[in-house]
Amino acid sequence: MSEYLYPINDILFSLRSVAKIDRLTPYLDDAVDNDLLEAILGEAGKLSEQVIAPINASGDKEGSRVEKGEVIEAKGFKEAFQAYSDGGWIGLSGDPEYGGQGLPSYVATAVNEGVQAANLAFSLCPLLSLGAIEAISLHASDELKNLYLPKMLAGEWAGTMNLTEPNAGSDLAAITCKATPDGEAFRIKGQKIFITWGDHQMTDNIIHLVLARLPNAPEGVKGISLFIVPKFLLDDQGELGQRNDVQVVSVEHKMGIHASPTCVMSFGDKEGAVGYLVGEENEGIKAMFTMMNNARQGVGLQGLAISERAYQQALAYALERKQGMNAERTERAAIIEHPDVLRMLMTMKSQIDAMRSLIYVAAVENDMSHFASGEDQQRAIARTALYTPIVKGWITEQAQEITSLAIQVHGGMGFIEETGVAQHARDARILPIYEGTNGIQAIDLIGRKLHSDKGAAMLSLLEDIEAELAEWKKTSVSGYTEKVQHVLELAKAATQNCLAEMKKNPVLGTGLAYSYMMLMGYLIGGWLQVRALEAAQNDGNLDDEQKASWEHSVAFYCDHVLPRAFGYSHSIMFGSQTVDKLNKSAFNR
Amino acid sequence: MSEYLYPINDILFSLRSVAKIDRLTPYLDDAVDNDLLEAILGEAGKLSEQVIAPINASGDKEGSRVEKGEVIEAKGFKEAFQAYSDGGWIGLSGDPEYGGQGLPSYVATAVNEGVQAANLAFSLCPLLSLGAIEAISLHASDELKNLYLPKMLAGEWAGTMNLTEPNAGSDLAAITCKATPDGEAFRIKGQKIFITWGDHQMTDNIIHLVLARLPNAPEGVKGISLFIVPKFLLDDQGELGQRNDVQVVSVEHKMGIHASPTCVMSFGDKEGAVGYLVGEENEGIKAMFTMMNNARQGVGLQGLAISERAYQQALAYALERKQGMNAERTERAAIIEHPDVLRMLMTMKSQIDAMRSLIYVAAVENDMSHFASGEDQQRAIARTALYTPIVKGWITEQAQEITSLAIQVHGGMGFIEETGVAQHARDARILPIYEGTNGIQAIDLIGRKLHSDKGAAMLSLLEDIEAELAEWKKTSVSGYTEKVQHVLELAKAATQNCLAEMKKNPVLGTGLAYSYMMLMGYLIGGWLQVRALEAAQNDGNLDDEQKASWEHSVAFYCDHVLPRAFGYSHSIMFGSQTVDKLNKSAFNR
Repeated sequence: MSEYLYPINDILFSLRSVAKIDRLTPYLDDAVDNDLLEAILGEAGKLSEQVIAPINASGDKEGSRVEKGEVIEAKGFKEAFQAYSDGGWIGLSGDPEYGGQGLPSYVATAVNEGVQAANLAFSLCPLLSLGAIEAISLHASDELKNLYLPKMLAGEWAGTMNLTEPNAGSDLAAITCKATPDGEAFRIKGQKIFITWGDHQMTDNIIHLVLARLPNAPEGVKGISLFIVPKFLLDDQGELGQRNDVQVVSVEHKMGIHASPTCVMSFGDKEGAVGYLVGEENEGIKAMFTMMNNARQGVGLQGLAISERAYQQALAYALERKQGMNAERTERAAIIEHPDVLRMLMTMKSQIDAMRSLIYVAAVENDMSHFASGEDQQRAIARTALYTPIVKGWITEQAQEITSLAIQVHGGMGFIEETGVAQHARDARILPIYEGTNGIQAIDLIGRKLHSDKGAAMLSLLEDIEAELAEWKKTSVSGYTEKVQHVLELAKAATQNCLAEMKKNPVLGTGLAYSYMMLMGYLIGGWLQVRALEAAQNDGNLDDEQKASWEHSVAFYCDHVLPRAFGYSHSIMFGSQTVDKLNKSAFNR
Repeated sequence: MSEYLYPINDILFSLRSVAKIDRLTPYLDDAVDNDLLEAILGEAGKLSEQVIAPINASGDKEGSRVEKGEVIEAKGFKEAFQAYSDGGWIGLSGDPEYGGQGLPSYVATAVNEGVQAANLAFSLCPLLSLGAIEAISLHASDELKNLYLPKMLAGEWAGTMNLTEPNAGSDLAAITCKATPDGEAFRIKGQKIFITWGDHQMTDNIIHLVLARLPNAPEGVKGISLFIVPKFLLDDQGELGQRNDVQVVSVEHKMGIHASPTCVMSFGDKEGAVGYLVGEENEGIKAMFTMMNNARQGVGLQGLAISERAYQQALAYALERKQGMNAERTERAAIIEHPDVLRMLMTMKSQIDAMRSLIYVAAVENDMSHFASGEDQQRAIARTALYTPIVKGWITEQAQEITSLAIQVHGGMGFIEETGVAQHARDARILPIYEGTNGIQAIDLIGRKLHSDKGAAMLSLLEDIEAELAEWKKTSVSGYTEKVQHVLELAKAATQNCLAEMKKNPVLGTGLAYSYMMLMGYLIGGWLQVRALEAAQNDGNLDDEQKASWEHSVAFYCDHVLPRAFGYSHSIMFGSQTVDKLNKSAFNR
């Protein structure tokens, strides 16, 4: 099995030349200089390659299990988590007041690309911890922050997010878990499912963030509150005290991410689990939504990361495996010499390049939305909101194709589990589902993001793209610019059409949502590919072969990937009727 | 978990109204009348639903294992195989001289759709047996036929195909397994991998068909011969005698089809396995190729079958699962009421309709190539050769998308193995790989099928499609006809372009092969969808709701699936350069 190599050069290039991290410099007290960034990413790469990647396949095989009411994680995970915590990686962009390092989130994104590619199942534990840390940082009282954040930022305690119930998956309004005030705090009762890393032995304590309803709370999403429910309660000194009334019931048998325990959690089987209110009563959903951009972009990053891992493995195999003859028919050829294999590999690579560009562009935009001020900040907030569903939805859809192509390059060996490449496809299959299914992402894009501001944020993005394409018209990338411009015109028309359909009927209009999300993804992918090529050609740090590699990627993308936009555009322009008319009787035959 | 329902009405409709089985009537001594066909398929449906489907999930969970040098298959499989044999299903289109029933192969295709959908892993055992039966029927001496065919056609003995070796996957020229004459027969020595159902306890004997090289055989594919190597040798009375020198070494751990033992087989560890030459020396590859159309179309059928199974499960879930509110926001809605879920389900259903049409059109064409005579037969042979890579390649690609969508409709539950829907996607993942990867199929289409006859067979197909579209121009389906006609024009241009590129350079030209295969698939899908709708509208056996269902399927297909052809067409017309220029250095960065 091939080893994972953290693609530090591609990441640095994306950050500097495509995402333009310099945009942040005016807003940061301590800007991250080049040397520091390279040092951080160099260390992150080593950790990913040497500590976290080696337990990926074994974790998949071993999985996790429940023993005596406790989850036992796969071998080596505790040690890896320890190394991860010791390195200070969890607190990278955390609040310095509580022990974080206060770095912009793009640094954490770049670090996490490596961790997620190395071991998706492992990476979910720190990721969920970060989600919990963020919720507490943004919404909890200072007292709760002081009690929980330092240990969590140090990686001594982990965190989880408890949203889903059996009847409330995408539909949080249906949550029934109860919280009753007991004088000092609250008592939580109810069952939660699909709780990622809901229990394990890697940390001394686990801080569960739980959505529940107070007595007499309004129905629906406006009656949901957020609580901290620690596995171990804290004594007066803030040290670990007695066990709280929260139990793991079972772990799921899943298609992938076997080493990540997906738990059924039971709160309050006995006297009720002690919980502490985070933020205001009945404002739990709002608290969740403030974390949404980060969490969803995080899943998009997982799509990029696992695609890169699968691609690396496929490329290594294609360079080694001999089948058939070379073009001159003089000797047996490595399969990378066959045009159809080159097509598969470049379909993977060129899409990964585009995905990575979007990931870091969106991450920097997200940082701008926090660090910038005034109009710049407002624009960054709107742009981040727009990018997020595309990052999550479009990138994780691509990840399905890319991890599947990695199997295909392996032929029969790809289907054999020991080869290790099937795991990436099995692991990746969760990405279009969790943190809001891709259908939800698409509806978020066409509804909350496009329809609700009458297209203002989207039209501003389209204008920016057009302006940038115009700048390149007389450069060496002008040929590609024209191809992207063509898709831009389609996207403009599609945007107007979606706005009209959503205005007509905001429920039926969502029938176009998926096609619109995919179309916008390919447009943005094409635009950023050309931006990357333009930068690469003028980048003194790249040698000729690297520059040529970028040109191959972008040229292939424009001819073989970008044209998929034509089909989605056609769906949007001419296909609303054939979706609108559907209902369940259409399937009766 | 939902039960499988054999879609007998859709199958009968496809056979009669799309594939037009009446075309065969003039050539058959005993035509299959309506009542007989319905009776056969009714029984096949029951067997699939009641006997074979119930052991699909349990077989996946249990898998198979090697104990004391024998493969132990999953529980219930032996009994199911017995029921399958007792029903006479293996011999359905076998030679009556040896106990077969001599029915046209389209009947067996329709039966197998049910068996494969019910349990893909199970279905591979009879499928491989049929491959062995066909090889023996077409190429072995009368003596060998008399010895082996009756028991195999009765299902008392199973058969296997032994082609692949560790260094010879897609590249059969690299086969090294040896066959040495020992006076009476041959002694076979060598290792084979990826041998489906290479060993099991379901039948008394297993007849291995093995490719091997005679001493001093020419190099490459022209030096390979085909041998019968029975697990148990036969005594003078043709009864089971001593154990032959063939052993299963291990079974692979695979991503899917767990219950189908994929064996490493060792021939001749001791004195050499006794083998009997089938056909002429050094003509083993030719013998294999005569079975290719059936085998490859059989894998395409698996793609249809497993897609139907996954679709049925997704539809059932979408009708039951409640999430969110209905359009009027008066009550919780089954998820099928949400437009994006309807989109997913109709993406599945409309593609399945198109796939099924092609499966049965190709099956009837295949029968024509055997039963018809003169010019009709010649045309059917050419048409079958053309359809085969599209049936195998395009349909199994669709199967990836459809089985993945079935997971997506389930949301988080889809990722949980107990739900049973993930199994279909894991099982389906082998389909683009075995029996010639889809890359090989595409190259077969653009090379052996298109380039080698200068496009004659393909242009004839395109003319037939155009003529049929012209017939419908003044009917109620004319709107759809225009959409298909548009894609037909793209396909004509793409065909000329592929011919020109292949003439220029038949190696580099294959860089367009995959896009061409997919484009032709969508064109044929669209054409046959319109044919189906035209027939449905004039079919007195269909009620209004069924007719409406066909219209939904075809309308959706034309607006949302067929437009994918635009992207592939663009790749072919403008993208040859960006594939041609690729080589391994393009990935150096």
